[in-house]
Amino acid sequence: MSMIRPFEKPLGMRDTLPGIFEKKEWIRQVGREFFSLRGFDFIKTPTLEYYETVGRFSAILESNLFKLVDSQGNTLVLRPDMTTPIARIASTKLLKEKVPQRLAYFSNVFRAQELEGGKPAEFEQMGIEVIGDDSIYADTEVILTTIDLMKRLGIESFKITIGHAGILEAIIRKNVQTEEQFTELHQLLVNRNYVGFEEAVDRFVLTIEQASTLKSFIEEATSLTNMRQISKYLYEKEALIYMEQLASILEIAGVQEYVAFDFTIASHMNYYTGMMFEVFAANTGYPIGNGGRYNGLLENFGADMSAVGFALRIDYLLEAMPKIEDEKESVLILFVSTQLAQALEQTKQLREQGYRTTMQSLEGIENLAQYEKQFTKVVRVGQGGTSYE
Amino acid sequence: MSMIRPFEKPLGMRDTLPGIFEKKEWIRQVGREFFSLRGFDFIKTPTLEYYETVGRFSAILESNLFKLVDSQGNTLVLRPDMTTPIARIASTKLLKEKVPQRLAYFSNVFRAQELEGGKPAEFEQMGIEVIGDDSIYADTEVILTTIDLMKRLGIESFKITIGHAGILEAIIRKNVQTEEQFTELHQLLVNRNYVGFEEAVDRFVLTIEQASTLKSFIEEATSLTNMRQISKYLYEKEALIYMEQLASILEIAGVQEYVAFDFTIASHMNYYTGMMFEVFAANTGYPIGNGGRYNGLLENFGADMSAVGFALRIDYLLEAMPKIEDEKESVLILFVSTQLAQALEQTKQLREQGYRTTMQSLEGIENLAQYEKQFTKVVRVGQGGTSYE
Repeated sequence: MSMIRPFEKPLGMRDTLPGIFEKKEWIRQVGREFFSLRGFDFIKTPTLEYYETVGRFSAILESNLFKLVDSQGNTLVLRPDMTTPIARIASTKLLKEKVPQRLAYFSNVFRAQELEGGKPAEFEQMGIEVIGDDSIYADTEVILTTIDLMKRLGIESFKITIGHAGILEAIIRKNVQTEEQFTELHQLLVNRNYVGFEEAVDRFVLTIEQASTLKSFIEEATSLTNMRQISKYLYEKEALIYMEQLASILEIAGVQEYVAFDFTIASHMNYYTGMMFEVFAANTGYPIGNGGRYNGLLENFGADMSAVGFALRIDYLLEAMPKIEDEKESVLILFVSTQLAQALEQTKQLREQGYRTTMQSLEGIENLAQYEKQFTKVVRVGQGGTSYE
Repeated sequence: MSMIRPFEKPLGMRDTLPGIFEKKEWIRQVGREFFSLRGFDFIKTPTLEYYETVGRFSAILESNLFKLVDSQGNTLVLRPDMTTPIARIASTKLLKEKVPQRLAYFSNVFRAQELEGGKPAEFEQMGIEVIGDDSIYADTEVILTTIDLMKRLGIESFKITIGHAGILEAIIRKNVQTEEQFTELHQLLVNRNYVGFEEAVDRFVLTIEQASTLKSFIEEATSLTNMRQISKYLYEKEALIYMEQLASILEIAGVQEYVAFDFTIASHMNYYTGMMFEVFAANTGYPIGNGGRYNGLLENFGADMSAVGFALRIDYLLEAMPKIEDEKESVLILFVSTQLAQALEQTKQLREQGYRTTMQSLEGIENLAQYEKQFTKVVRVGQGGTSYE
């Protein structure tokens, strides 16, 4: 245990100061109106959930969970994702009212970090889930909503890269000998470590055909020109036909320029079962969001229902968005105590006119020169009347 | 340890379903614009803080803290209040830029509950802090801001009851024999248990004069007609003179009808040092918010600065607010897969016109009759063209 100084915060915890707060709030505001207009209902879930339910089903690595024990001896977790709590709430409550459900959220989630990581251990996501619609049009809706939202946020240059959890799993599984090999290769793809993938294939005991299949698949799937190319790697073509249909629907919707297909996409969220995707913006090297179909998750909560959704990270969005300089006008009313009534009246009028107005007594301030600099206009209400600067 | 069923949430944890979410969001939206217009800057602090800093200084009972241990062996707490994290952030960062600081927040806070309690263990507050202005005008500003906000939220019938931490402490302390007696009497006032207070006074070993002084003070202070009445209980009159001045300023500001003075007000937040108040609405039996001056708290974080603030609870506000029925118009576009392009176009147009519009394929839905009922208008885009219901 180290000595903690008063100004310190726990590992990975961040303060949001006013400038950043305003920018994030703008994103939230846009998202709020955007999702609502599209018929999504907003919900909120508690910060703490049982480990036995949401903790276990969340697909977040055990070591990344913040855990605590409550007064009854139950293990609780700080919400590690939002998809799992929404699966809980939909399964046990909302789906009784109507199906499908279209739900939206803004929420902070928690991931405990290694000391060296430097990554935030708490970050905010906004996202949606379409629950109880197993058709391809629910998948389409989620992808189109992602694209529209990115545009609405002013991000011009971005790409949605679409893969398929089932297709990837089938191809790797067919070409390995053990479950351990499968897990290791899958994890390497989660980390986009293609070099490591090839090294592992060389290291594993595999047939010559398996090894060469895996290598050529990785090469072809990351530089895909035609989805048909992947057909030869699959016994069962159903999922691929589905993806071709998805591509043609996205073409009808006129969004080809924003989408690409890559069947090597793998997620650390192991509840994905079908189509899945990642969102990349031009000036970020990592996905700023992701989504996909997860048809097995709700069963854990007693509802055997299909679901598909996506989430974007607010902190990453902030980096991807065009920089907006908003020098807001702000008025300072400085008053001496005898002129209180007059200062109150003037402040009231300015605020009614929509001016951001701070009312400050001269008695309560020490470094006036420094303070005044923070405002675009200063009004002095003093003994001799009002003067403007 | 009990058996946990999949739908269960930890003790005191709540879901916020769409109807309540929208109402709370409306409150947030009003608060956002309201505080911003008054020159307050919004900040956010992390959910987890060190026990050694924010946990210890937060004045929340040890048994009400949610605690966990991080990978370095440090004890962390889930933020039990916002005033203490803001004191940390102001002391170590913001006060270097300008003094005074006017800060605002929306934030969930956490208080572990007893099994029997049934109270929420996580709830949301909105509030402000004015830091570094020790004048009476900062106290006034906080009270006036509270009153204006209540009005802005449409709550017509409410009262701000104002007391003083120093005056109450001086009077009790003068009339008890031991620190234990002081603590017990103070706690009884925190709980507004006046009967218990009188019983304790009878039980304690006190002089006849002390006992009768305490009893008559309690009686007079809760039915105060003139602040002067309290003068006889005090050696040191300075704080009372301050409160008389505060009353006259509030009169100049024209808010007498909303304020009352009661010197028996005590808070479980033991960091208050001066003026303090509670906010009551007509149809709630408990304070929906509270505020006050806390001139000692920032010293813990290395800045010897005065501060005053208030916070309202969003859940209690919701109960106090007039019920608004907002039957929003919502359109459902139902389409068959061959008419996708047409459905996309119509949906786009409706949304551009500001209609909340859900687009749903007929393939993805089972109980159509139940589903359609959720919308005020249904448009079918089928083989034979478009039909309206």
